[in-house]
Formats: sequence, C-alpha cells, structure tokens
Amino acid sequence: MIKQISHLGLAVKNLEETMDFYRSILGLEPADPIIGGNEGDLRVSLVKVGDATLELIQPLNENSVMAKFLEKRGEGIHHVCFEVDDIDADLERMKSKGLESIGTPKPGAEGMSVFLHPKGTKGVLMELVQKSE
Amino acid sequence: MIKQISHLGLAVKNLEETMDFYRSILGLEPADPIIGGNEGDLRVSLVKVGDATLELIQPLNENSVMAKFLEKRGEGIHHVCFEVDDIDADLERMKSKGLESIGTPKPGAEGMSVFLHPKGTKGVLMELVQKSE
Repeated sequence: MIKQISHLGLAVKNLEETMDFYRSILGLEPADPIIGGNEGDLRVSLVKVGDATLELIQPLNENSVMAKFLEKRGEGIHHVCFEVDDIDADLERMKSKGLESIGTPKPGAEGMSVFLHPKGTKGVLMELVQKSE
Repeated sequence: MIKQISHLGLAVKNLEETMDFYRSILGLEPADPIIGGNEGDLRVSLVKVGDATLELIQPLNENSVMAKFLEKRGEGIHHVCFEVDDIDADLERMKSKGLESIGTPKPGAEGMSVFLHPKGTKGVLMELVQKSE
C-alpha cells in the first residue's frame, strides 16, 4: 500500500550551484552530497521539506540514465518516489494488473526500491521504496 | 518560509482513465473532479497520499497552458507546489534575489497561490501557496 510521498527526484546539471539556489533563494537546507545510484554514477544532495525530501541529482557519467534525461529534457523533475508498506507484495500486485518495473527491488539509501516503467503510469516515472526500520 | 510540499501537479490527457489507474492499480482514492485554473479551463482530481496531494490535471481547452505542455512534453509531472507561511513576503524575498513569478498571487482552491518562472528555478515549475485558515 502506498503510504506517502517519500521524495521527489530532480535532475540537475550542477549540484553545487543548485544547492546554493535552494539554500540562498528558497531558504532550504541541502545536505552534503553523497554518491548514489546503483552504479555509483550520481551525486545526490537531499533537501528536507517538511516530511518529504527533494533529491537533487547530478549525473557523474555522461552515459548514465540521468545524463540522458538531462540531454533530452533539460533540468527539472525526474521522478516521484512513494513509500510503500511491503515492496514485494505491492510490486507483485501492480504487476498482476499490467504494470512493468525497471528491474527488481534493490537496496538503496532509504531501503529497498524499484522504479516503475513510465509507459504504464501515465508518463510519470514512479519509484517505490520500502524504508528500512 | 517553505513549510512543506503541498501538492504535485500531473498533466493528464484523460482524467477518468487516470483516476481509474490511480484507484485500481495504485490503490489510491481520487476525489470527484472539480473545475479549476484561473480561466476555469482545467478539470482536476485531487488524490491524497499521506500528508501530500497529487493533482491530476486535464486541460479542457486546447489553447490552455496545460494543453500546450501535454503537446510538447506528453503526460507527466508538471509542477511542485510548496506551502509557504506568508506568500507576499516570501515572494518578495525571492524576487529580491532575482526570481521571477508568473503574474501575482491569486486566490485558488487551497488559498493564495503563484507560480515561479522555471527559468529561475533550475527547470522546475514551482508553485507557492499560502493555505487559507
């Protein structure tokens, strides 16, 4: 079951410049960058906004999925991540109704997560995460 | 000051079909459609997800901003709305640092709201809203 919006992933070209924008103009507090992505090919700064989080994501490798997104669509909102109760059961239920995932759930910073293919989700790239306790 | 993510606006082509997707596949509960937009040229269904809301937005008029977005980019995430304490003061502060708004704050379903021009916000269309008490 989907419980809440966990984070919103934003594709950015220059992480430091974007962190400075969030800090100085929006008045938010971006955390120190960490290396992320299954291939370690992303630099990410998390920005808490109330109970949700913005993930500022800069690709480190021009062949990465995120670099290709930036090239094609420019900077902007990349995906929305929903927190679920039970990622295996929830994914199984969604797949039984025709949704496709991109690979299988993998461990990440927040817990096990998986992306759903946007062709089945009305154009919205959705990630599901089951947070580690 | 930005307090939290108030909602995420999603551009959709067919509201009923999308509501059905959210209900039957994601297990969420889209509310009955309402007419929205300053020109009354949008049909909107709100979907509560924890403390945040997804706004499913279908244009009614092919000349509307939302119809042009759909034509250019297809279905997907259109904007993120942040709840602020004091929209006039917050907007003034942001403008003093170089951000541009699209028009001035106007009354909407949630309260006074205004969009920020994405050229100043790293490609993310941001809305600010001060909720009515």
